[in-house]
Amino acid sequence: MTDHPSLSELDNTPGFARRHIGPGASDVDTMLEALGFRSLDELMEAAVPQGIRAADELALPTAVTETAAARELRALAAENKPAEALIGLGYHGTVTPPVIRRNVLEDPSWYTAYTPYQPEISQGRLEALLNFQTMVGDLTGLPTANSSLLDEGTAAAEAMTLVRRANRRATGPFVVDADALPQTIEVVRTRADAMGIEVVVADLTDGLPEGDLCGALVQYPGASGRVLDPRPVIEAVHERGALAVVAADLLALALLEAPGSLGADVVVGSSQRFGVPLFYGGPHAGFMAVSAGLERHLPGRLVGVSVDAEGRPAYRLALQTREQHIRRDKATSNICTAQVLLAVVASMYAVHHGPDGLRTIATRTHRYAAVLARALADAGVEVEHAEFFDTLSLRVPGRAAAVVAAAREHGLHLRLVDADRVGLSTSETTTRETVDAVLASFGVAGVDVDGIDQTVADALPEALRRTTPYLTHEVFSAHRSETQMLRYLRRLSARDYALDRGMIPLGSCTMKLNATTEMEPVSLPGFADLHPFAPAEDAAGYHRLIGDLEGWLAEVTGYDRVSIQPNAGSQGELAGLLAIRGYHHANGDTGRDVCLIPSSAHGTNAASAVMAGMRVVVVKGADDGSVDLDDLRAKCGEHASDLAAIMVTYPSTHGAYEDTISDLCTIVHDHGGQVYVDGANLNALLGFARPGEFGGDVSHLNLHKTFCIPHGGGGPGVGPVAVREHLAPYLPSHGQHPVAAKREGIGPISAAPYGSAGILPISWAYIRLMGGAGLTRATAVAVLAANYVAKRLGEHYPVLYKGHGGLVAHECILDLRGLTKETGVSVDDVAKRLIDYGFHAPTMSFPVAGTLMVEPTESEDLGEIDRFCDAMIAIRQEIARVGTGEWSPESSPLRGAPHTSRVLVGDWDRGYSRELAVFPAGVDPDKYWPPVARIDQAYGDRNLVCACPPPEAFSE
Amino acid sequence: MTDHPSLSELDNTPGFARRHIGPGASDVDTMLEALGFRSLDELMEAAVPQGIRAADELALPTAVTETAAARELRALAAENKPAEALIGLGYHGTVTPPVIRRNVLEDPSWYTAYTPYQPEISQGRLEALLNFQTMVGDLTGLPTANSSLLDEGTAAAEAMTLVRRANRRATGPFVVDADALPQTIEVVRTRADAMGIEVVVADLTDGLPEGDLCGALVQYPGASGRVLDPRPVIEAVHERGALAVVAADLLALALLEAPGSLGADVVVGSSQRFGVPLFYGGPHAGFMAVSAGLERHLPGRLVGVSVDAEGRPAYRLALQTREQHIRRDKATSNICTAQVLLAVVASMYAVHHGPDGLRTIATRTHRYAAVLARALADAGVEVEHAEFFDTLSLRVPGRAAAVVAAAREHGLHLRLVDADRVGLSTSETTTRETVDAVLASFGVAGVDVDGIDQTVADALPEALRRTTPYLTHEVFSAHRSETQMLRYLRRLSARDYALDRGMIPLGSCTMKLNATTEMEPVSLPGFADLHPFAPAEDAAGYHRLIGDLEGWLAEVTGYDRVSIQPNAGSQGELAGLLAIRGYHHANGDTGRDVCLIPSSAHGTNAASAVMAGMRVVVVKGADDGSVDLDDLRAKCGEHASDLAAIMVTYPSTHGAYEDTISDLCTIVHDHGGQVYVDGANLNALLGFARPGEFGGDVSHLNLHKTFCIPHGGGGPGVGPVAVREHLAPYLPSHGQHPVAAKREGIGPISAAPYGSAGILPISWAYIRLMGGAGLTRATAVAVLAANYVAKRLGEHYPVLYKGHGGLVAHECILDLRGLTKETGVSVDDVAKRLIDYGFHAPTMSFPVAGTLMVEPTESEDLGEIDRFCDAMIAIRQEIARVGTGEWSPESSPLRGAPHTSRVLVGDWDRGYSRELAVFPAGVDPDKYWPPVARIDQAYGDRNLVCACPPPEAFSE
Repeated sequence: MTDHPSLSELDNTPGFARRHIGPGASDVDTMLEALGFRSLDELMEAAVPQGIRAADELALPTAVTETAAARELRALAAENKPAEALIGLGYHGTVTPPVIRRNVLEDPSWYTAYTPYQPEISQGRLEALLNFQTMVGDLTGLPTANSSLLDEGTAAAEAMTLVRRANRRATGPFVVDADALPQTIEVVRTRADAMGIEVVVADLTDGLPEGDLCGALVQYPGASGRVLDPRPVIEAVHERGALAVVAADLLALALLEAPGSLGADVVVGSSQRFGVPLFYGGPHAGFMAVSAGLERHLPGRLVGVSVDAEGRPAYRLALQTREQHIRRDKATSNICTAQVLLAVVASMYAVHHGPDGLRTIATRTHRYAAVLARALADAGVEVEHAEFFDTLSLRVPGRAAAVVAAAREHGLHLRLVDADRVGLSTSETTTRETVDAVLASFGVAGVDVDGIDQTVADALPEALRRTTPYLTHEVFSAHRSETQMLRYLRRLSARDYALDRGMIPLGSCTMKLNATTEMEPVSLPGFADLHPFAPAEDAAGYHRLIGDLEGWLAEVTGYDRVSIQPNAGSQGELAGLLAIRGYHHANGDTGRDVCLIPSSAHGTNAASAVMAGMRVVVVKGADDGSVDLDDLRAKCGEHASDLAAIMVTYPSTHGAYEDTISDLCTIVHDHGGQVYVDGANLNALLGFARPGEFGGDVSHLNLHKTFCIPHGGGGPGVGPVAVREHLAPYLPSHGQHPVAAKREGIGPISAAPYGSAGILPISWAYIRLMGGAGLTRATAVAVLAANYVAKRLGEHYPVLYKGHGGLVAHECILDLRGLTKETGVSVDDVAKRLIDYGFHAPTMSFPVAGTLMVEPTESEDLGEIDRFCDAMIAIRQEIARVGTGEWSPESSPLRGAPHTSRVLVGDWDRGYSRELAVFPAGVDPDKYWPPVARIDQAYGDRNLVCACPPPEAFSE
Repeated sequence: MTDHPSLSELDNTPGFARRHIGPGASDVDTMLEALGFRSLDELMEAAVPQGIRAADELALPTAVTETAAARELRALAAENKPAEALIGLGYHGTVTPPVIRRNVLEDPSWYTAYTPYQPEISQGRLEALLNFQTMVGDLTGLPTANSSLLDEGTAAAEAMTLVRRANRRATGPFVVDADALPQTIEVVRTRADAMGIEVVVADLTDGLPEGDLCGALVQYPGASGRVLDPRPVIEAVHERGALAVVAADLLALALLEAPGSLGADVVVGSSQRFGVPLFYGGPHAGFMAVSAGLERHLPGRLVGVSVDAEGRPAYRLALQTREQHIRRDKATSNICTAQVLLAVVASMYAVHHGPDGLRTIATRTHRYAAVLARALADAGVEVEHAEFFDTLSLRVPGRAAAVVAAAREHGLHLRLVDADRVGLSTSETTTRETVDAVLASFGVAGVDVDGIDQTVADALPEALRRTTPYLTHEVFSAHRSETQMLRYLRRLSARDYALDRGMIPLGSCTMKLNATTEMEPVSLPGFADLHPFAPAEDAAGYHRLIGDLEGWLAEVTGYDRVSIQPNAGSQGELAGLLAIRGYHHANGDTGRDVCLIPSSAHGTNAASAVMAGMRVVVVKGADDGSVDLDDLRAKCGEHASDLAAIMVTYPSTHGAYEDTISDLCTIVHDHGGQVYVDGANLNALLGFARPGEFGGDVSHLNLHKTFCIPHGGGGPGVGPVAVREHLAPYLPSHGQHPVAAKREGIGPISAAPYGSAGILPISWAYIRLMGGAGLTRATAVAVLAANYVAKRLGEHYPVLYKGHGGLVAHECILDLRGLTKETGVSVDDVAKRLIDYGFHAPTMSFPVAGTLMVEPTESEDLGEIDRFCDAMIAIRQEIARVGTGEWSPESSPLRGAPHTSRVLVGDWDRGYSRELAVFPAGVDPDKYWPPVARIDQAYGDRNLVCACPPPEAFSE
């Protein structure tokens, strides 16, 4: 009767996949034609080796519309019941200033940015991170802080390895305060166990236990609320030639003396309560600060000040050799993600409030605790510690569970310490209503809060009252009104190049669309405001969402079980290797400790292996980029009795589908080893091949690569680990896991039971919106786009490594080594020149020095891909002009790049025009202007400055 | 016991007022010192005449924290129960694409922008508005559309006055379709009544009624759902020498033939269902399109294409003389606000979906209606019209109320037409679940929807099926993926200068902070998704919020009653004058029709008076800017028997507190007139004086000026009207008002009972956060800032008009006429040169030609104010160089401004350096670059182009 599509078809037109995938049908046809294929199926048939092809299509729920997915997510959020969280233990109520929420957390110009490896186009977030470092340095009283770690637990573990690394003579155990956060103790134990470090948990009330040690960690204030003076322990540690670590509460440091001033060598902690939502445990930015002399041992990212080619101060990552060029087999840290977005929020919280504001918030938090302590004591409740900052330990013999239950009825989550004790922590969000509800939970009524407030003294130890100043830099006082704050945030984000401006064709990093529908649920109170140790019955929505997501990830990878606990890819790797280690040990194979790693592997692979207590043996690469199977057989034979595992990336880091992966798996299995397939390149596999089917025993994934969690300027990430059934018993556990069965096991890999739970709705939404067919099409289009780029640019630059069918996978490597040799123009020059053309550079010199690796992803449309190819071709022509001698490399626009607006207005005596300098692809009124010229990396490392420079440094 | 501030003090530190008010305590001291005052009190004592000082402090609820206010607003939102709205009547379910919600509606770079009167720094939103005009023009089939009106009802009223204006010979009645939207009929009647136009409401089924007419309006499709072929009526109208207006549904036009193609002269309607939330009635962008020859009669804003000084196409407002320089006493429209932000959303919805997407959405909407009609007919329900687009009129004799009640239980809002009939409209948000719920409401179950879908034919009239194409311009096809859409939105917003970049010191426009806490609630589903005709019991939160807000506005203005219905200041003016008219008429004083207006008044004042059926008599200004009381006495005497009112602005548009206001009020009252105090400058009064106390009978306010509703790039606005008790019976009413007592009266001024209800939470939040003390301090700081500017710049430019105490009020006028005469440098040159310095210009040539009026507001901090003063002083020095003959005006950087990046890279033969051109205040890597050079206004009006130009026009 009607010539329309049916209602069912109309209901699903155009569908989210059309919004996610950049090229439309006709663009896809154009690209296929350029490659000589008639369909995406034909392309993928040719590209993906038959031997690894998935047996079945993806069995996922049918894709739904954005409206329906948003509704489902709101329903899930509504199943969580975030009471007011007084549980404490490193997670506290805080107010995200709305101007920061809207203009950082919810703003694509911040959250779609990449890690600031191209500092000239990252000055905004580098400044924000320098503020973070300055804030942490000031509050901890130490000269150098990094720009975030994954959480407080892993920061403590990193501190442990740092003290060993910095002080190789001290080989004794690492002593941990019994009053440290329980999850910190657990994470430290998990790490220490694998690395063969002895951990001694000790009550430090009466000082350090006897004996040798490499270092000690004091919690300040303690998990029980007690504020122990750390000086005696610190002094004893130093007397024994070891280093002292303090795990500190950043807000408490607004009132308590800085640990650095008390002698601490290293201070770690979390910046969560500086405006970052609870997020059911994460993501939050951990921090670490160190005393003078330890800078070069600091793990993670460190922002420093250098100068640009115009001689002006400019920011960039300092001492990068520590991090990216990590010595693989001697590594003691595999950190390669920070929590940049969250560190930016925390730093902006400090900018917003300034020193006075922070002191007010800390004082209010303390005063509420002091008033509560007095009111409860007056009512006969025993308050265990007379001195505290925000946390009370309350004895109610036999009644603790009843009090906690009553509190829940009053809308509060308290901490059940044991049958006789209840813990509670006040925070920025504590109000009069909170006080009333707490008192009611204890059966106390009729308290005159203001009367008590007038009479009760502070409960801070006099000897530890803060006397040293903090946040004295102008930036912490200059943006006190919301208008000023908004403009500061906008000014910084406008300095940066993110996905909201154009393509970021970073090989291996999969910079794809982060759709608004995926992002919006992160702000829902049901997801944002839940404490990680809230009772399971109040987290039903999260548990359903996590169950779905773990199940879907198992389906797409072909594994049996998934844990989303690891809060970064590096942590997923470590978790995967620990599962292998646990399996071998359970089989009695305690000697299996060799991990084979191909020479082309990600640097973190080897570092993770070392951290998992393994010895790294490198396997050669063949000329085509694949693993040399002969060498593999030889190495397996050599290590037949002690082979633990091989770690391979598939498709390889060379961006090609290798034919030999199945053989490789068989060889390793035949020698008793386990196969670890790094999931970094999963975007080339989804819907076409499953690592768990073609031979992998374990993989970690990167949700921020394949599953649309935005890079956030360098974090957060999520690195789930997926295993076959035999490894399932060795997945991460957590002593405070809401599911009882997961409390015992190999221990936690992250501080929170579900890691970065707060951003899991993003990946859930992506899979829900795409469905199996959408994900499969996305893979095919990603491969199509990479091959299209390889085809167009292959005529101008050699493309290294092609795989099956002469095709690349989802990325391609452009080899500039020959051109560099001939002309002196380096990959760096090309990368910086791309800025003038309005692009972020591809990945530089990985996995092969002197090359550029390009990954367009499925989200870039043909117009943008062509614009990029045109730019690369134009740059090739510029290189040719250097080749012919028209320009010397030094006087060419390639070396002059990036060109700033500043340079334009000065005298001009270059061998090319102003127009060619800044508008090489034609005048563009929407041009992105880099705020600084090329940055001198070496200068900054020679002259290390890692805190905010004075404003005069920038004066004209 | 403690030396802290008390908990109560800590709870409220620093408080929102500190975030809202730019200058901190020490900045305030610095500014006071510069002016020679010791305190804000002393300043205000000197500035505000004693005679008008408020008797009491503001009695408002105590200010609360942002967290508390946000919680209260969430609670209010939760009291609204937005069921799925099938009520129709011009308000329909729609999906705001999340990428548009986050990056337009929730993005300060869009919502804090000003009206694009400075087109060089407004190219982004001008392009978006040109897209809107193109979209409306395409869909309506007419060549010229404006860039939005306030709503469909007022658009219809504007169409009525347009047909009279365009065709002065046709003096007969205006015929309105009886099947027009009921609120449209009402708004037209209200307007017509005041202007003495006869309205005939007629059933047009069998054609036009007999007799003379000026025009006729046909609803297409009708409110009942019927799709009447408008051609016979249009032809009859034309035969009688009149003009035909069609009120059309924009989504229906994706399937139904364009009214323009059917002969309509004018098409009006609402673009709400193009992605704009229901918002309980508004704000939504109305539209109007006209046939060739009527362009110059079009009311409201019209974007056109012109050229810039570099010869490239550039956008700006066209034919501005129609609007801003309206002939005061001959006006037939007072429209001076558009709904820019909402028009941008609607236009981007069209960009996002494109022609295919719109056709799919329209088809799905229609098919759901067709399936429902069949299913209900099969079940014995009579479907009144066989042909329809989305709306069904269903006969259920005696059961209508029961069906509507049952629907509410099923989560639906249906339309109760009368005891026997139920109306329902499908929409973009209709799903299978909707169908099931509708059928269940009628007691029908077990329907096979897909089966019906396969058999039922379309119910569109064959003769009216659309054959003409639409949205053929490339912009409607080029942004199909979300990544493309995001980048397009960012590219456009980056072209514009808004409050997120810096100060917009616009006199009379009060461009102050729009805090995030104020803005966030607008997105809450409880506020966003409610239909304006939902039952009162499902809108309890809105009713409480509106009750609060009306009460608070009454308190701060000293009036007795407030109506927030007017959805723009112009509508508030008209409502206020209609109240005066109603009062006089009720007293039998039908001859009182003279409205006195001072020569310095806002242009809209006179236009509003004419629209209210009054005769305008101008009262002279005195030399000091105040009203000449002698002339006032003379005019009052002259019109003693026919004096209706005086309209004055206080402080006057000259930005000074005049001493004579009380005398003025007394004189007018003594002559039987009412005093209308225009509330445009209320930001200078809050907390210090109340118009209702010092002599006003009625005022309108501008919530987008004083009460923080953002300007949105030129709308939305809200213009509440406040009256003393004797005028209260004559406030706007509305036939579908949820409060029965407000259904009868003078009629509605806006289409929805509560006007732009959806943005009222913004002003509610502002007052709740500031409290009486905060509002009072804001006023004082605004006055301080204006006087500080007057003091600093007064040494360089004459300041026109000072009032009481030799002080200005909240703004000051810089007189450039002498300099212009001496040097040839115009206010235009200064305004454009300010762009090079990184500023939006002050108000130009209002209220005095050749001057600039500066209003810094309380939200700008001292640093930004000084930066502005420094720029103005530097410009003064540039003018001096013209004065000395160093530069001719033509060759000076003042005339060359604004300077683009394009001009920098070309040859340079100007008499000043590139650096002086673009970095006059020093090199600034964060510089805002205007995308175009100075625009030739006259060229665009001579060569009127008001739709998107082809891409080739922009090629290099």
